[in-house]
Amino acid sequence: MIQVAVMGYGTIGSGVVEVLETNREIIKRKTGQDISVKYILDLREFPGDPHEDLIVHDFSTIEKDPDVGIVVEAMGGVNPAYAFAKACLLAGKQVVTSNKALVAAHGTELLQIARDKNINFFFEASVGGGIPIIRPMVQCLAGEQILEISGILNGTTNFILSKMDREGQTFEEALKKAQELGYAERNPEADVEGYDTCRKITILTSLALEKEVNYEEVYTEGITKITDTDFKYAAKMGTSIKLFGSSRMADGKTSVFVCPMMIDRDHPLYGVSDVFNAVMVRGNMVGTLMFYGSGAGKLPTASAVVADIMEAACHMTDNVPLGWSSEKQQLSDVKEMRFRYFIRFAGSAAEKLADVEAAFGKTEIIELPGMDEFAVLTGEMTELKYHKVAAAFGDIRQMIRA
Amino acid sequence: MIQVAVMGYGTIGSGVVEVLETNREIIKRKTGQDISVKYILDLREFPGDPHEDLIVHDFSTIEKDPDVGIVVEAMGGVNPAYAFAKACLLAGKQVVTSNKALVAAHGTELLQIARDKNINFFFEASVGGGIPIIRPMVQCLAGEQILEISGILNGTTNFILSKMDREGQTFEEALKKAQELGYAERNPEADVEGYDTCRKITILTSLALEKEVNYEEVYTEGITKITDTDFKYAAKMGTSIKLFGSSRMADGKTSVFVCPMMIDRDHPLYGVSDVFNAVMVRGNMVGTLMFYGSGAGKLPTASAVVADIMEAACHMTDNVPLGWSSEKQQLSDVKEMRFRYFIRFAGSAAEKLADVEAAFGKTEIIELPGMDEFAVLTGEMTELKYHKVAAAFGDIRQMIRA
Repeated sequence: MIQVAVMGYGTIGSGVVEVLETNREIIKRKTGQDISVKYILDLREFPGDPHEDLIVHDFSTIEKDPDVGIVVEAMGGVNPAYAFAKACLLAGKQVVTSNKALVAAHGTELLQIARDKNINFFFEASVGGGIPIIRPMVQCLAGEQILEISGILNGTTNFILSKMDREGQTFEEALKKAQELGYAERNPEADVEGYDTCRKITILTSLALEKEVNYEEVYTEGITKITDTDFKYAAKMGTSIKLFGSSRMADGKTSVFVCPMMIDRDHPLYGVSDVFNAVMVRGNMVGTLMFYGSGAGKLPTASAVVADIMEAACHMTDNVPLGWSSEKQQLSDVKEMRFRYFIRFAGSAAEKLADVEAAFGKTEIIELPGMDEFAVLTGEMTELKYHKVAAAFGDIRQMIRA
Repeated sequence: MIQVAVMGYGTIGSGVVEVLETNREIIKRKTGQDISVKYILDLREFPGDPHEDLIVHDFSTIEKDPDVGIVVEAMGGVNPAYAFAKACLLAGKQVVTSNKALVAAHGTELLQIARDKNINFFFEASVGGGIPIIRPMVQCLAGEQILEISGILNGTTNFILSKMDREGQTFEEALKKAQELGYAERNPEADVEGYDTCRKITILTSLALEKEVNYEEVYTEGITKITDTDFKYAAKMGTSIKLFGSSRMADGKTSVFVCPMMIDRDHPLYGVSDVFNAVMVRGNMVGTLMFYGSGAGKLPTASAVVADIMEAACHMTDNVPLGWSSEKQQLSDVKEMRFRYFIRFAGSAAEKLADVEAAFGKTEIIELPGMDEFAVLTGEMTELKYHKVAAAFGDIRQMIRA
């Protein structure tokens, strides 16, 4: 029998307890072990909850109990998750987490402690919720040089953008709807400013390169400036706008960025709508793969945590190679990255297009009826060039990378 | 150093040699082992090939060489692949294969020998080419009760159907094009009759249930009777027609079938075109996941084989739990399965619709201009009921499940 402690009895923590119970027989058959929850750590009381008797308020109860072999960290945030996870690993307990903030900020150290202790620190659920992505990347694409990862990694922003796309809502309307449905928090900053996506693409990039990537160095731009007008142009162009977390790894250079991207119908991520997530991976041999599913939600995320618990249960005293070293990955300056640019200009195309093309090169022009503006889609150029030309040109209402 | 023998120097075998060479450094870094090819078994000579000196014609050279730790079976077909794979395992050599016919027919026995010998029989590349599907299903969905698997598992038929869909080609025209491009063999039977898809869905179902499924018991219908007229109706309905390999596992019953299915735009597999493959998996906790990528092709398939070689290299003397037992899975009779049916009738809707609905129940009607026929989409019913009513009704030009 393997005893588990669950830290944090919120959405994911309670989901983990539920999945362990619902699928108890399958889990026992596959691992050959009875996995049961001994403690649930939470500051709150849960009177009437069927697991009320498992609630503890003092972390040291878990830390000091030698019967606890695996600890699930489902508290979220960096503190005290970091201190608790570290203490558990140092006490020889395996740690499984769904917490991308923890993994992005302290993954390198926690992975090293796990290696030193011959146990494991697993975090499949920290990226893409229930979508298997970390283990497939590490194991199934083991022989690949990974050239690109692009993901729709945040369900909240994807829901908002889908609402704007399909129903013509403004950002504010769509955000309000997302909050009403419980998809967005009252303070939505971590989602809409791209911080959540930033942590997730950082983790995937670290795994691909087996080196530490500093999430603070990742260029990160959210979706708060995307408007319903942008989606009117997108509809006319047959494109959509999605919040991408991407890394490009080729020729010894690594670029990582988070920003809204305008993509067309042929892009594998075009059809990923609502709260769904998807990750596209391009390898030098395997070509383009895509992994798609529920990127968040109680049970999908809990399912990924439970798969990690099961793997940990099968490796109680050996470290499964996974993760990255403490070697730091240098990132290319965002100014060197190349994109096409969708740009909206005040004024009329008839008057201004010649000047626009003199500055930005040959473009595709998009006009909507009855607007005092027009848009173009440029050819590919560096960020450096775009910003230089754009600053000199002025009159720009919007820019979205494509 | 780990020495590998590659049996079969065709598309996949040569791809494996190429991936091992191109990504040698990555492979060495990740496995901590130098993996090199010692023999290539083929009946043919390859004068001028850079690996000419590795070619052997006699299997016993491989079987008897104690230095060979891992054998790649890339010959295809059941004979002599089965005899060779079995002999290698019995000689204590790990076997990695891309051969779905071998795995579907003899997987149970080969998996058992590998377990008995404390080594491994891996076959990630046998389903979905380069798409990681077997390991994610076994490991990442370990804690799930899998309720449904539906896949577009054959690139050749998907290419043909995509051509018919987009370009209005007949089956014969699209097949000819596929043969010209090398996507279809001169004898295309295994693909177009659904036999290839049948083996693949059998393997996935066996993995999901951890029991042996007999591929000969799987209801299998190919795409040879799908016409350009069917796609005209599909276009009008906003649907597409794809060859599905599916299994439904719920309430203690298991149904497995291969047949063309009419699916609408909301289906996760709707957008999977050309030679791409995709597998949709639905679990009781995680919901719907999809895995998408190149389902065939030299390098993608070889990439999956190489990932298996790398995993085998890390487990030279221990069996990684994977596969199924010799317990046989009972399959439900196809007659009990429930579908909706797209049916084309000779004659005019004005005259016949009342009779059609009296027989099949309430339907949606679809008419194309200038045709001496019409089509309906029925509600859900069992195969038993459909065939009973259809036989009594007559005048049916086509039936496609939906």
